[in-house]
Amino acid sequence: MIGIIMGSISDLKVMQEAADVCKEFGVSYEIDIVSAHRTPLKMIEYATSARERGVKVIIAGAGGAAHLPGMVASVTTLPVIGVPVKSSNSIDGWDSVLSILQMPSGVPVATVALNGAKNAGILAVQMLGIENQEIATKLQNYKAELIQKVDAMADELHQK
Amino acid sequence: MIGIIMGSISDLKVMQEAADVCKEFGVSYEIDIVSAHRTPLKMIEYATSARERGVKVIIAGAGGAAHLPGMVASVTTLPVIGVPVKSSNSIDGWDSVLSILQMPSGVPVATVALNGAKNAGILAVQMLGIENQEIATKLQNYKAELIQKVDAMADELHQK
Amino acid sequence: MIGIIMGSISDLKVMQEAADVCKEFGVSYEIDIVSAHRTPLKMIEYATSARERGVKVIIAGAGGAAHLPGMVASVTTLPVIGVPVKSSNSIDGWDSVLSILQMPSGVPVATVALNGAKNAGILAVQMLGIENQEIATKLQNYKAELIQKVDAMADELHQK
Amino acid sequence: MIGIIMGSISDLKVMQEAADVCKEFGVSYEIDIVSAHRTPLKMIEYATSARERGVKVIIAGAGGAAHLPGMVASVTTLPVIGVPVKSSNSIDGWDSVLSILQMPSGVPVATVALNGAKNAGILAVQMLGIENQEIATKLQNYKAELIQKVDAMADELHQK
Amino acid sequence: MIGIIMGSISDLKVMQEAADVCKEFGVSYEIDIVSAHRTPLKMIEYATSARERGVKVIIAGAGGAAHLPGMVASVTTLPVIGVPVKSSNSIDGWDSVLSILQMPSGVPVATVALNGAKNAGILAVQMLGIENQEIATKLQNYKAELIQKVDAMADELHQK
Amino acid sequence: MIGIIMGSISDLKVMQEAADVCKEFGVSYEIDIVSAHRTPLKMIEYATSARERGVKVIIAGAGGAAHLPGMVASVTTLPVIGVPVKSSNSIDGWDSVLSILQMPSGVPVATVALNGAKNAGILAVQMLGIENQEIATKLQNYKAELIQKVDAMADELHQK
Amino acid sequence: MIGIIMGSISDLKVMQEAADVCKEFGVSYEIDIVSAHRTPLKMIEYATSARERGVKVIIAGAGGAAHLPGMVASVTTLPVIGVPVKSSNSIDGWDSVLSILQMPSGVPVATVALNGAKNAGILAVQMLGIENQEIATKLQNYKAELIQKVDAMADELHQK
Amino acid sequence: MIGIIMGSISDLKVMQEAADVCKEFGVSYEIDIVSAHRTPLKMIEYATSARERGVKVIIAGAGGAAHLPGMVASVTTLPVIGVPVKSSNSIDGWDSVLSILQMPSGVPVATVALNGAKNAGILAVQMLGIENQEIATKLQNYKAELIQKVDAMADELHQK
Repeated sequence: MIGIIMGSISDLKVMQEAADVCKEFGVSYEIDIVSAHRTPLKMIEYATSARERGVKVIIAGAGGAAHLPGMVASVTTLPVIGVPVKSSNSIDGWDSVLSILQMPSGVPVATVALNGAKNAGILAVQMLGIENQEIATKLQNYKAELIQKVDAMADELHQK
Repeated sequence: MIGIIMGSISDLKVMQEAADVCKEFGVSYEIDIVSAHRTPLKMIEYATSARERGVKVIIAGAGGAAHLPGMVASVTTLPVIGVPVKSSNSIDGWDSVLSILQMPSGVPVATVALNGAKNAGILAVQMLGIENQEIATKLQNYKAELIQKVDAMADELHQK
Repeated sequence: MIGIIMGSISDLKVMQEAADVCKEFGVSYEIDIVSAHRTPLKMIEYATSARERGVKVIIAGAGGAAHLPGMVASVTTLPVIGVPVKSSNSIDGWDSVLSILQMPSGVPVATVALNGAKNAGILAVQMLGIENQEIATKLQNYKAELIQKVDAMADELHQK
Repeated sequence: MIGIIMGSISDLKVMQEAADVCKEFGVSYEIDIVSAHRTPLKMIEYATSARERGVKVIIAGAGGAAHLPGMVASVTTLPVIGVPVKSSNSIDGWDSVLSILQMPSGVPVATVALNGAKNAGILAVQMLGIENQEIATKLQNYKAELIQKVDAMADELHQK
Repeated sequence: MIGIIMGSISDLKVMQEAADVCKEFGVSYEIDIVSAHRTPLKMIEYATSARERGVKVIIAGAGGAAHLPGMVASVTTLPVIGVPVKSSNSIDGWDSVLSILQMPSGVPVATVALNGAKNAGILAVQMLGIENQEIATKLQNYKAELIQKVDAMADELHQK
Repeated sequence: MIGIIMGSISDLKVMQEAADVCKEFGVSYEIDIVSAHRTPLKMIEYATSARERGVKVIIAGAGGAAHLPGMVASVTTLPVIGVPVKSSNSIDGWDSVLSILQMPSGVPVATVALNGAKNAGILAVQMLGIENQEIATKLQNYKAELIQKVDAMADELHQK
Repeated sequence: MIGIIMGSISDLKVMQEAADVCKEFGVSYEIDIVSAHRTPLKMIEYATSARERGVKVIIAGAGGAAHLPGMVASVTTLPVIGVPVKSSNSIDGWDSVLSILQMPSGVPVATVALNGAKNAGILAVQMLGIENQEIATKLQNYKAELIQKVDAMADELHQK
Repeated sequence: MIGIIMGSISDLKVMQEAADVCKEFGVSYEIDIVSAHRTPLKMIEYATSARERGVKVIIAGAGGAAHLPGMVASVTTLPVIGVPVKSSNSIDGWDSVLSILQMPSGVPVATVALNGAKNAGILAVQMLGIENQEIATKLQNYKAELIQKVDAMADELHQK
């Protein structure tokens, strides 16, 4: 199971894409609102108990001074994927990107692109697919679909 | 009492200035290493119990993805002053500045300049001086000394 | 009493949030337009006389080359909270953030996030609550409300 | 096995830390020089054959216009961790950070901090530990050591 | 013949300007969708065979972590012009600019301004015009037209 | 007379160049330490009385949150030239550049390059030379010397 | 007379404010389109002959790689004021700001804020007012009006 | 012949690499000091006459507000390659990068990486090699050498 969390319901429009990837690959997930700054104890409880609840990868999205992914990583041994969300009043997204990316030695967060929740989902699936051949095959098929989409775009271009 | 904390002993060369200000103004302080990412539970314990231990203002310094000031602020009602420290591997200090400054609505951190631990100390003293006339007088005297220092620099310049 | 000032009436849409926090916490406040560059003498008069007028914390908001918070801090011993306002023609808010944050040693400004007037208000209330148990209790209740809001958002999410 | 690659021998001083983590956790690894721009075909061969060679996670470090992690990710279904290296003539590291982080939808790279090869190693080990209890226990012990190191630093501070 | 490629059909609204310049100068061109990350093998095939297919200059446009121009340059000896495209979720265009510009020694990309596909077209024509007097004359005429356009704008201004 | 002021004696190594230009062009000058944040009243006194003291242009240098040039401009009708000084703890000079440059409508500061005190001096001389033919001639000669220096450098290059 | 030039008619919406200031202060001006990159010879002719045509200050506005102000300054001894214009496809205005501000030693440009044409006009008037008492008085009155406007805004605020 | 110019002899340590590439590929070149701001007329003369003097590509390096490449491009129909040089007092190289890269429509400059004079040389040689088979073969051999260098580095790594 993949755990998807975010600091606010306003992040859902971005983070929904991570859940959609899970559905597409047939991987179970749970989704919740957990705020580092407003519900710090819930956050610690969430992350501490994640492994025993069956969570295998945590995807955490947050904006501004985005502390959720790094703080979750501080209390779990599971891999944590951070999604910088470009919130209102963000300074062009730099704040969330740097707050998530620049973690100190010892506590990594796997950071993806600004608003890159879809890629967070794919990355989580890749982690599950390291030793799971069925998932690996689905990922290979997904790559094949990407090629087909580019081919379709090329056809569209040439018909213009 | 002012509580001064930092994520690593390597931050002490910057953060010592906050302690020096406390000494200069005759304000008691405690100083400790508390890491958001390596000792999250100690951090929460530290911040949760701070008010009842007699701490009146918390000064927290951290570099990189600097989560310590903001996380401390999430579990205390005391004012928290954040000092962005320019650590090695920092991206020119932008990471610590933005990780501390851009806190979400509801959980403020009083951010000072990059490596500005001295100003963090003065700001903490100012907070204590809001209703303490003795401290307020010391702060007024401190301002007078700043003027004298500029006058001395002007004299030095004119003698060249 | 908390003093709230801003450089232009156009900053009011941001700075109103600081006043709203004061009202919410039952803290008296005064609000005024004071411009560092257009009314420098009024600014100095305002800041010099603030303590004797009963002001305990000054919240100053400004955009662009935002000199108001720092200049006010230069002539008062009260704590000054600076709110960087993202004005039109701002370079993405960087100008006001850096003009307020990067104060020299000796004259701190407690800087909050870009457009973070709400947090400026809470920070001011926290300063008043250092030794005021009634305010401290209100702040504790405010934190409890933040948790309830996150819980409500989580419920909303789970019902989707 | 973890595959560690970098674009130039000059990156080794940074990337060695990823290998050291593998040794510390008893995880086998291979290490090689593979350049996206100078040996593009070797890169594609390396990445295409990685899974069948027994590689489970690829760690790729590169500086400047750092295309190695993203291009490797384009031809493998394994998770790829990117390490932005601050090379000479880099524009403060921004070039390598953004070239690795901002991957398009469909092809994620798990990006760590600038020069963060140690964290890349830990993240790779975390991925292997998702379903490997022995590694998970080692990671838990590693976290305990981080706490002990902070405690030791706190002791050092208090003895000053 | 000038080869114009881009990573996605969504880049066409920018890249069309390069094709328009070719038409305006009577230079033949081919246009295609080639994605570094989704169709890496097509990209290598495209670039490797370009010279023998009669392509003389390659113009490659891409956004975000824009690897297409640099990767194409890695497998051809033809000059490659890179157009940074400001895509959605871009961090203000900095990601594509730096991913294309900061190529390592040995593998240059001739980078033009953000969304500067028109200039990419003119630059390609200039390369063809180095030893082709007819094209050189057209370029000279083009410069004369630029002057006339400025003169027309000046007239418009003076009539106001 | 040209008035040259700076916030600290540590700025003198940069600001001396402005004085040197005055000497070179035979223009009288005064030089002083005036700090916006430490001696605000001296600053206002300095700027308010400048015109009647015979000052014709004010050159003000400052680092960090550099308020001196803008505040001086707020209380004089003389042109004010601002020199952003790259001080220690500056965030790469961006803070002083933006604090000086981004003045609001109504109160301009003529900003020169980071550490560009020499150009501040030349700009001040140019202002005096608007209607002073002797100075204008000296400026013309200065331009001729610039050409000679480039010619000398070209000779040096060709002899290598 | 003040000379106002810009690289394109599209800059007029910004640059008109400089002309409006001239009108307001009763200072004559000329306005023209002069492009550094499209009409380089016209630019040199314009700047070289400016002083003898009676121009006393040149205001030059440009966007992107904004070379107009600096190139004009290279061929005149008059003071040149540069207005960075935020054009379409600009990288947030940074390109025009830095292209105008960071002039090398020997050739200053008096740079004003992004889109700050109004301040460019006032700065030009201030230069003319150095030794012209009538203009100096108008500038003093202008400052008085700024105060009145702030007072009016304060009244508006207090009535709410 | 390739024309290599730079604004100052201090740029030679960077720009020498472009000349070295010319020697390595057996392509003739001329090298000179030409300053946009100090010798604008020499610059125009240089660029205007370049094609008839036998120059086929111009490589121009400059730092700070780097106008040389763009201004040269404004008066020649030859392709111009711009090398942003990181000069002292540069703001981390951003000024020269943006001043060269962000040219307006109609006047392209082929920009290479910060201090990337070697790549400027290779790019110029590639332009000459578009229709020159001998040069194209040398470029192909150069690519083979790049591969050998990476292989040698890989051997060195494996022997450690």
